[in-house]
Amino acid sequence: MTLKRGTRGQIPSFLVMDVLREANRLAHEGADILHLEVGQPSTGAPEGVVAEATRLLRASPLGYTDALGVPRLRERIAEHYKATYGVAVDPGQVAVTVGASGAFLLSFLAAFDAGDRVALAAPGYPAYRHILTALDIEAVEIEATEEDRFQPTPALLDKVPGRIDGLIVASPSNPTGTMIPPAEFAALSAYCAKRGIRLISDEIYHGITYGMAPTTAASVAPDAFVINSFSKYFSMTGWRLGWMIVPADLVRAVECLAQNMVISAPTLSQAAAIAAFDCHDELQTNVRRYAANRELLLNELPKAGFSHFAPPDGAFYLYADVASLTNDSQEFCRRMLVETGVAAAPGKDFDGGRGNRFVRFSFAGSTETMATAAQRLAAWRR
Amino acid sequence: MTLKRGTRGQIPSFLVMDVLREANRLAHEGADILHLEVGQPSTGAPEGVVAEATRLLRASPLGYTDALGVPRLRERIAEHYKATYGVAVDPGQVAVTVGASGAFLLSFLAAFDAGDRVALAAPGYPAYRHILTALDIEAVEIEATEEDRFQPTPALLDKVPGRIDGLIVASPSNPTGTMIPPAEFAALSAYCAKRGIRLISDEIYHGITYGMAPTTAASVAPDAFVINSFSKYFSMTGWRLGWMIVPADLVRAVECLAQNMVISAPTLSQAAAIAAFDCHDELQTNVRRYAANRELLLNELPKAGFSHFAPPDGAFYLYADVASLTNDSQEFCRRMLVETGVAAAPGKDFDGGRGNRFVRFSFAGSTETMATAAQRLAAWRR
Repeated sequence: MTLKRGTRGQIPSFLVMDVLREANRLAHEGADILHLEVGQPSTGAPEGVVAEATRLLRASPLGYTDALGVPRLRERIAEHYKATYGVAVDPGQVAVTVGASGAFLLSFLAAFDAGDRVALAAPGYPAYRHILTALDIEAVEIEATEEDRFQPTPALLDKVPGRIDGLIVASPSNPTGTMIPPAEFAALSAYCAKRGIRLISDEIYHGITYGMAPTTAASVAPDAFVINSFSKYFSMTGWRLGWMIVPADLVRAVECLAQNMVISAPTLSQAAAIAAFDCHDELQTNVRRYAANRELLLNELPKAGFSHFAPPDGAFYLYADVASLTNDSQEFCRRMLVETGVAAAPGKDFDGGRGNRFVRFSFAGSTETMATAAQRLAAWRR
Repeated sequence: MTLKRGTRGQIPSFLVMDVLREANRLAHEGADILHLEVGQPSTGAPEGVVAEATRLLRASPLGYTDALGVPRLRERIAEHYKATYGVAVDPGQVAVTVGASGAFLLSFLAAFDAGDRVALAAPGYPAYRHILTALDIEAVEIEATEEDRFQPTPALLDKVPGRIDGLIVASPSNPTGTMIPPAEFAALSAYCAKRGIRLISDEIYHGITYGMAPTTAASVAPDAFVINSFSKYFSMTGWRLGWMIVPADLVRAVECLAQNMVISAPTLSQAAAIAAFDCHDELQTNVRRYAANRELLLNELPKAGFSHFAPPDGAFYLYADVASLTNDSQEFCRRMLVETGVAAAPGKDFDGGRGNRFVRFSFAGSTETMATAAQRLAAWRR
């Protein structure tokens, strides 16, 4: 008899993964590929973390931890909020997760039921939408505009038909790199509080900004989920470690969900990550490289016809408007990859409606890679 | 305005976690606690894995991997099925996951929709039921009996009112340690195939058995999810690494779900785990310790009044019938902990109906711990 297949697994893959696969295939055939498609630092974990992990591998049997994480790491994260933002955070409300991905899963399950409606900006990180869909929560896309730095606003939320139970914001955003200025963040948070909208603030690119100070929802929205990660600023992608500040009324729910669905985040990653907060010198060197890469691309890419970008406030992305070059960014990226070896992500991943006229360049790699990519693209378009 | 709270987070915690917390509190006050409550090896990863991880910490930036895992690990897992069971497995159907927990999440989402009904035995691992509930899938408990080694059977499934979309089996089982003999496993699998019931076979205790050969669903049920883990036999709990063999028709769904919900399993764990399959000598030493512990407890616990156990075919648990000692196993475990320092898990975690007359002892610790525990319990009951 035919076996049951769920419909919840029928969510799209990332187009960027298809680009990566094709790039790797071409590299395997001998092509010299420049990776501006993947959103991860080319650096590894800071030295202090590697040294501590090396020590712990012999010093500990590395068993399970508490579901919400190693107590000292939860305290250290709370101290980070005091030192960085001047905000007092209760370590009891800090949950250590398997990357920010694990935090999305647990927060969505704790806050929402099937049929609930969660708003989020397009363009945005596609996994928000796909995780919500897999959990039978309705993702309500808000078409954000460049005038609002591609971010949600009270005015845009007012136009949404029907009720809204939650709102996901990301400042800096992936793919645009844009941020919500402090006053706007406070206004948006107040709007949500007034209307019973649970705010989920994705802050994984905090620490990687180029002028504007990032606002943490922890400073303005005590009922928000505040989600962060060791993958970006801390340069520890494959360690699969993130955290969130959980609203007080949902800590127990998150703990029970984590006990059952995860047991605990990777123990070595947790224990070694405590040292990451003492590695700011090394991490700031990475940030200076991102800043240099950003400057370089903003200066050089216009020579290749990429002249209009979303305001690049933070993260390591340039979201380029390529409407003057193509009306099919996926085909455009494919051709660019084959003809120049430069891999970039088509906008359709991030914005189903308007993505065909955008391309995302990631400048998380080396400055040399960025310079070579810019040269090749200029030659390509000449 | 009041913010939305989901009902899906309102799943129970593990009682065993409460026992562990109380045990740790007593230890902190100076009590000499013997841990027979937690189901994890007291040993760390085998030496070959630790050595390889130590090397990789310096040799690799440890970025993301493919969503389904590092190719060489997926191949090595497939080879393990050939070597251990004589079964050919396509590495393309192997998915590397964040522990077996991550495999449950992905398999349940890929195979079932909200409202679907999945059968499972009571007593059983409580997280099955709780993860299903959090995903709005109905957990249909089958009251298994000692005559059937506390395992599901076609006859028990026939008695379930209404349709069944899936069946979870665990052989060896947690908490009972019982196994499904090969002929019964084949019959159960054929029953499921005939009725369109998707089989999910939890095989995380394979490798830890005491006579009966374990059957892998991969050998009899090509449409089953086969779930395993590096946490038990391979002694790598905190590394948070598991795997599953995914039915061919659901590989793409699992890949898309993993890309969006997980990105990838911990990179260091994945790369180092390849070496685990070359560490059987060391791992067999662990298994011999479990066997000695089991013998010791089976000989000594009857002196303390624990004289009736589920058939202890595998895993590192004894599921003791304590009906002659108490009708409230939770209170019994609490008193045993305070009065003897021996921590054990009350049966209610595993069987809401009959758990009050059962206690689970884990013998994953040292033989010395087991001997001391048995002595204390005998003295306690004298």
